[in-house]
Order: sequence, then structure tokens, then C-alpha cells
Amino acid sequence: MYATPIARLIEEFAKMPGIGKRTAERLAYYVLNLSKQEVDAFADALICAKEKITFCPVCQCLTETVPCAICGDERREQDVICVVEKPKDVIKIEKTREFKGTYHVLHGVISPMDGVGPDDIRIKELLARVTTGDVREVIMATNPNLEGEATAMYIAKLLKPFNIKTTRLAHGIPVGGDLEYADEVTLTRALEGRHEIG
Amino acid sequence: MYATPIARLIEEFAKMPGIGKRTAERLAYYVLNLSKQEVDAFADALICAKEKITFCPVCQCLTETVPCAICGDERREQDVICVVEKPKDVIKIEKTREFKGTYHVLHGVISPMDGVGPDDIRIKELLARVTTGDVREVIMATNPNLEGEATAMYIAKLLKPFNIKTTRLAHGIPVGGDLEYADEVTLTRALEGRHEIG
Repeated sequence: MYATPIARLIEEFAKMPGIGKRTAERLAYYVLNLSKQEVDAFADALICAKEKITFCPVCQCLTETVPCAICGDERREQDVICVVEKPKDVIKIEKTREFKGTYHVLHGVISPMDGVGPDDIRIKELLARVTTGDVREVIMATNPNLEGEATAMYIAKLLKPFNIKTTRLAHGIPVGGDLEYADEVTLTRALEGRHEIG
Repeated sequence: MYATPIARLIEEFAKMPGIGKRTAERLAYYVLNLSKQEVDAFADALICAKEKITFCPVCQCLTETVPCAICGDERREQDVICVVEKPKDVIKIEKTREFKGTYHVLHGVISPMDGVGPDDIRIKELLARVTTGDVREVIMATNPNLEGEATAMYIAKLLKPFNIKTTRLAHGIPVGGDLEYADEVTLTRALEGRHEIG
């Protein structure tokens, strides 16, 4: 049997998503081989992240300030909301430097198979923003897979009574991609979304 | 870009063996979704394990006491040393309740491909025990793979001048196994190791 402090550490690691018993043992073993300073730095990073990072009360994104830098920026179009699944998606879209609106992070998608219903993700917070604020457009930027599409449709339906323009990211051939490697569904969407040129 | 406390946490996770950037992000995200109490417990488990667990100066196993429970137990045969690769192997062998000797944990195997030489694992500590103590038998219980075999051979060679009985765990068909599924090398070893019955 493992000594109690090791068993406890393994248990903490094993609680993490995608980390099984064996990996947890390997990680605990890694920690025991670190220097005291390194372990302290690790523990401090945990506590520090939890203390300093909160969810923005407006867009639900992770932030050090309240509201977050984007929700608090008057130069951003506060009446345009881009709805994404996770905080990382915000970073991805920000990198394009194209989007001037704000975000709303759902923290997941509706997925009955995984037991995630509409009340388990931050949809009501989005509805609160739409109800109280002056929103012009909601862009559904959930992933183009089964759950992402279903969640986008579900939210679009909820927004219908508010008469707000609800849009969805375009599907199509990736830039630099090759027709040969595009799947049929993507190709169909690309055809449907064709636009005049020249 | 991630806020500094998140980036730091991701970095700490990404340092762990087998944890890539994406998994580290997922783990950091998991931590941010924990309650403050849970994060404190996690951080405490890290610090506590590092503080309370040391390597036994005799057998190099992880222990809360110095020397470890096995090295300090007079009822164990202190002149028989079972050499294993990692602390977990000690637990595995202890579970058989058959072995009454002591252990020596190498913390790895010689593996030139991974840049691990004889000086990187705890062989000199084993030699020190053999030189100073009264050792009757050394059982090489490294894994039956390329690195494990090579390490066993290397250590056996080093022990030769001391005139100590050096043995290796037997290879053969696993109990409850099926000849049909045994690989040829295992079967050859099983034949070589055959013994009279009845």
C-alpha cells in the first residue's frame, strides 16, 4: 500500500478529466522527484490561478478583471455577441483581429448523451444579456459538429421572440485546403454558401 | 492570450510527463472550475507529499519513515535484496506476501536510447549496500523487456566480484494463461525453465 500522502496525491490527480489511476501514479511520482521549490511553485500556481481568475459576470469568460477587458472596452461593439463553447475559442477568434464585438462563453454544449442539458451551460446568462441589454446581433460560433449545431439551433429558437439577428459561422472549404480532401458535407455547405465574384 | 495566472498554471501542467499543451489547458480549465476548497486541498496534497515522503536511504524506496518500514523490520531477511525498477513494483511484490527479504529500487532502467546510463539510476547505492552489508542473495526483478534484461545483466556483472548469489525472476506461461496466446519467446523460456513434477 502507498503511504497516505502519496495515496492522497494520486487521488487528487486521478480526479482530473482524462487522467486514469496509472497516469495519476506517474504524475505523483513526477512530483516526488521535483525539488521542494518546484513543488511549491506548482502549488502556488494552482492557488494563484484560482484566486485571481474569475468568470466575467457579463460574458462568462475567464478573466483577471471584472468585467473582462473585452466587455469593459467601449470601442468594442457591445451590441454584437459572439457565442462560443469555451474560453479558448475567444482567444482563437481574437487572433483574427477581425471581430469587434463581444463574446459569450457557454462553457460546454448541449449533449444529452453526456448528460449535459440546456441548464448545465450558461444559456440563461446569455438570455439575461439579451433581455436587459440592447443587442443587435448574436453570432453562433459553436463547433460545426452534432452537439454544436444542436446547441446553436436551440439558442436561435430561444432568441426568436426577441427579434434579434441570429447568425451562424459560414461552413466551407478551408483556405489553402484541397477539394480532393474536403468531405461531402463540407463541400455541400460550401456550394450552398457560394457567392458571386468578379 | 491567456491571463498570466492561467498561462502559468498551464505551463506547470505541461511540464509533467506525457502531458501536452492541449491536455495542460484542459487540466488548468478543470482547476479553475473547482471550488476554492478543492484547489487548496489539491495544492496541499502536493506540498504535503513532498514534505513527508523521502527516499529510504537504504533501499531508495519512497517512505514516510527513515529507514522505511521494510528496511527497519528485523523479521525481514535483511541479507536478501530484491532489485526492482520502481516503487510500485515493491507494492506489487509485497502483495504476494511471499517475499521476506528487502528491496532496492533503481528508479529506472539503463536505456541508452532515452539517455539513461548506469549513473542515472541508483546502482551505486546498491553496490554500497553490497560492499558494507552482509548480503546473501540479490534477486533481479527488473521487467522482462530489453532494458530490464540489460540492466539485470549489467548489475549481475558488477556483483560478480562480491561472490553473491544473483538470481533472476523466472519467465514462463502466466498462471491461468493459455498456450495459444503465449508468444514464442515466453514459450521458449517456459520450456527452458521446465521442472520435474509428480
